[in-house]
Amino acid sequence: SVIRDFKETVKNSFIQFLPSHPIAGTEKSGAEFGFSQLFVNRFCIITPINTNNDTINIIKQFWTAIGMQIETMDAEHHDRVLAMTSHIPQLIAYSIVSTAIELETHLKDEVIKYSAAGFRDFTRLAGSDPIMWRDVYSLNKDAVLEMLNKFTKDLSTLQKAIRNNDLTFLEETFRTTRKVRKTIEELGQAGSFDPRENKKK
Amino acid sequence: SVIRDFKETVKNSFIQFLPSHPIAGTEKSGAEFGFSQLFVNRFCIITPINTNNDTINIIKQFWTAIGMQIETMDAEHHDRVLAMTSHIPQLIAYSIVSTAIELETHLKDEVIKYSAAGFRDFTRLAGSDPIMWRDVYSLNKDAVLEMLNKFTKDLSTLQKAIRNNDLTFLEETFRTTRKVRKTIEELGQAGSFDPRENKKK
Repeated sequence: SVIRDFKETVKNSFIQFLPSHPIAGTEKSGAEFGFSQLFVNRFCIITPINTNNDTINIIKQFWTAIGMQIETMDAEHHDRVLAMTSHIPQLIAYSIVSTAIELETHLKDEVIKYSAAGFRDFTRLAGSDPIMWRDVYSLNKDAVLEMLNKFTKDLSTLQKAIRNNDLTFLEETFRTTRKVRKTIEELGQAGSFDPRENKKK
Repeated sequence: SVIRDFKETVKNSFIQFLPSHPIAGTEKSGAEFGFSQLFVNRFCIITPINTNNDTINIIKQFWTAIGMQIETMDAEHHDRVLAMTSHIPQLIAYSIVSTAIELETHLKDEVIKYSAAGFRDFTRLAGSDPIMWRDVYSLNKDAVLEMLNKFTKDLSTLQKAIRNNDLTFLEETFRTTRKVRKTIEELGQAGSFDPRENKKK
C-alpha cells in the first residue's frame, strides 16, 4: 500500500504524511479538465496514520476551503470501500470494453457504432488513465480480489436466473437496484448525464 | 423472440409488422423524459421480416423525419449486437449494484455515499425500468448467455493478471480500451457527463 511504501522509504520524522484524496472528477486527466465546482459537495477521505492533530487540521482546512466534505476512516476500511465504489466498477468497465474489441471485426465495429445502448457508460470509465489504474490494482490487490469474488458470484446468480427463465428473481433484483439509484440522486451524488454531445469540446 | 411471438399470434396477412427501434434514450422511462433532440444523429435499427418495400419505406421515413440514421440488419445479428452493446452492460450494472447492497450494512451505506467514484455510472443504468429489462433477458436469452460467457472469461483473465501482479498486461489492456472511448467520442456517440448535479430536476 501507499502507506507501507511511505513508512519503508521515509525515515525522517520531521516529514508528516496524511493520506487523503477527493472522490470527484471525470475520466479526463490533467489540470486542463478541472473546473471551479469540481470538488463542491463531494467527499474527501482522509486516513490518518499518526495522531498529530495539527497536521490533520491543516489538511482538513485545505480540502474544506475548496468545498469538500471530509470523512475519516482507517486505511484498511478505506481500501475495501474504494475497491467496491471505484476499483471494481473500473475493472469491469475495462473488461467489457476488452470483450467488445475481441469480437470478430464486423461485430466489433458495430458495438462501437451502437455504443449509445448502455455500453457507452462503460467506455467513459475505460477512457481513464492506464498508468494510474495499473498502479491502483497493484496497490489495493487484496480488497480488489475480495470484492471481485463477490461480484463474480452475484453475476453467476443472474446468469442462472436468465438460463432458467426465473423472471420473478430478475424483476425483483432490478427493482432493488433501482432504489439505490434513487438514493444516490436524493443524496445529490448522481451527477448528470446528457445523451447529446458536449459541444464545448 | 418478438418476431416468433408475432408470427405465432398474428395470422392476418393484412397486418404488416416491421420490427425497428431507436438506440437512444436515458435510464428514465416515460414521455415526460423525452426532449426534442433525443433521436437526432442516433441510430435506428430495422430488422425486416418480409420484403414489402412499401412498409419498409414508410417506417424508414418515420424514423428519418425525427432525425435518426437507419441501419438494416437481420434479427439474429441484431440480437448479438444488442446483447453486447446493451443487454450485457445493463446486466453487469444490475449485478454490481446488487453486490454493493449485499455488503454488510456499514459498508453498503458507504458505497452509496461514495458512489461518485465509478460506481455511479453503473447505478445510472441500474435505475432503468425493471419490467422492460426482465423481458429483454427472457426474449434474447441465447445471445445474452453467449456474450456473458465471453465477458466472464475476459474478467477472469484480468483477475489473474491482478493476482500475479502482471502490470504490463494491465497497462496494455487499459491503453487499448482507452482508444475505443476516443473512437466513440470522434463518432459523436459519446454523450456528455457532468459530475455536477442537474439542477433542472
